[in-house]
Amino acid sequence: MARVEQQTSSGQRFLEHVQQMLRTHPSPSSVNREALLECIQACLDCAQSCISCADACLGEKEPSRMVRCIRLNLDCANICEATGKILSRQTAFEPAMAQAILQACVAACRLCGDECERHAQAMEHCQVCAEACRRCEQACQRLLAAA
Amino acid sequence: MARVEQQTSSGQRFLEHVQQMLRTHPSPSSVNREALLECIQACLDCAQSCISCADACLGEKEPSRMVRCIRLNLDCANICEATGKILSRQTAFEPAMAQAILQACVAACRLCGDECERHAQAMEHCQVCAEACRRCEQACQRLLAAA
Amino acid sequence: MARVEQQTSSGQRFLEHVQQMLRTHPSPSSVNREALLECIQACLDCAQSCISCADACLGEKEPSRMVRCIRLNLDCANICEATGKILSRQTAFEPAMAQAILQACVAACRLCGDECERHAQAMEHCQVCAEACRRCEQACQRLLAAA
Amino acid sequence: MARVEQQTSSGQRFLEHVQQMLRTHPSPSSVNREALLECIQACLDCAQSCISCADACLGEKEPSRMVRCIRLNLDCANICEATGKILSRQTAFEPAMAQAILQACVAACRLCGDECERHAQAMEHCQVCAEACRRCEQACQRLLAAA
Repeated sequence: MARVEQQTSSGQRFLEHVQQMLRTHPSPSSVNREALLECIQACLDCAQSCISCADACLGEKEPSRMVRCIRLNLDCANICEATGKILSRQTAFEPAMAQAILQACVAACRLCGDECERHAQAMEHCQVCAEACRRCEQACQRLLAAA
Repeated sequence: MARVEQQTSSGQRFLEHVQQMLRTHPSPSSVNREALLECIQACLDCAQSCISCADACLGEKEPSRMVRCIRLNLDCANICEATGKILSRQTAFEPAMAQAILQACVAACRLCGDECERHAQAMEHCQVCAEACRRCEQACQRLLAAA
Repeated sequence: MARVEQQTSSGQRFLEHVQQMLRTHPSPSSVNREALLECIQACLDCAQSCISCADACLGEKEPSRMVRCIRLNLDCANICEATGKILSRQTAFEPAMAQAILQACVAACRLCGDECERHAQAMEHCQVCAEACRRCEQACQRLLAAA
Repeated sequence: MARVEQQTSSGQRFLEHVQQMLRTHPSPSSVNREALLECIQACLDCAQSCISCADACLGEKEPSRMVRCIRLNLDCANICEATGKILSRQTAFEPAMAQAILQACVAACRLCGDECERHAQAMEHCQVCAEACRRCEQACQRLLAAA
């Protein structure tokens, strides 16, 4: 019980820093802040989930069955990280750069989410990771539409 | 109002995935899960804050005054990212590897937090980033003590 | 003289490891190895040059004039890194993933190379970085055409 | 023959950019440039080799035997990348930051190099990666001694 409360407040503090950093920026971009915040968080969340899922797949009894999943997880993590970092920058914001990496991120999350979904029944970590991929794909799509 | 609710639920969902990934791992390490979760989140939060603070410093009217802060922000982000990723892996956990990067992360967060604190009165983003650095430093210390 | 020789042999050793890793892989992809090797190296080179150029711009007397260059350098570095890592993986190679990040990398290198070129006369580090961007853009284009 | 020449010149061009970026920096640190160049290259080389070795291990017939090697490869890559980036920055160089990450990098390269060496007879990619780890460990040690 106390444990759950502590974790929730930790999650809220996490949220606060991303949000506060965006709010206190001296020269914010014209990008919709709501969609941007959602997308930065979704990218960081998805990158972490993918790293974690690759590792969980490797810890399964038969990692040989999870080779494609591990590989796509690692690729997707690399792209989500890059996207989360680029979107975190507001100074001299370049729409063409954001668009390029967002499009790659949509593709990566779709490929990785599809693969994770295939294992979602058998492995709960793949189900969680598939959810993170779907949410990130949607957040990127929304930001592409808003930009 | 709706905005705040949406963001809060987004923050909680962020939390849920890290936590769920740890919970559903097939071969978890013996590291205290509470301290581990807190530390992974603090590292990811601090990395994002540092990237964001470097960018905010660059967007100030006189970035020449913020050169040391930008530089330490970028370094600290690199180390926090590496730490967050290494801690996200549970399979074949190697305490000596975790310890090595946690010690570097403590040093990085202290150096960067000290520098941000010098500008905290004048620039709110440096105050937010200093908080993120302090929390990450403490979370790393706690994990080092727990391991 | 001895200095130059040492560095040259160091550069050759760098080359040897990437090349050897590709050569000794148990299940290589069908991607043209020549083009792949060139592209991995160009991505790693460009990422390093961009990180270095952002830092050199920050060390100039008037960093305020270099804000856009620093920002694009950091973005381009993030994308080149991701591309170099994804291309370094041969197991369960997914052409759609490689294509997505290669297209983003072409765009990033063009944007960053164009910006660096604007400062190439005044700042030699921008000229060097522009060259690294052009080479990486071309290597990505070549790999996209070969795939 | 033509192939080898092209690759060699490509390797030399890789070298030239790192070296040129260091040479053209407007405010270089007082760190020994020779040792610094060697160390940046060794870190980038080792990060790439580790990513590649993790992937090659995953592509072996029985990846379940390579779990610890894959895991240490991924960790070592994360630390080498961070080290290579931090060392690439010369502006407002902070010795304590460099020292912290160099010490972590020495530990990471030793752990990963030891593991790779255990498989070096059976798997050539592990032998190549072990070499990259040893070289990086030594380059970091040399820079720590020179600083």
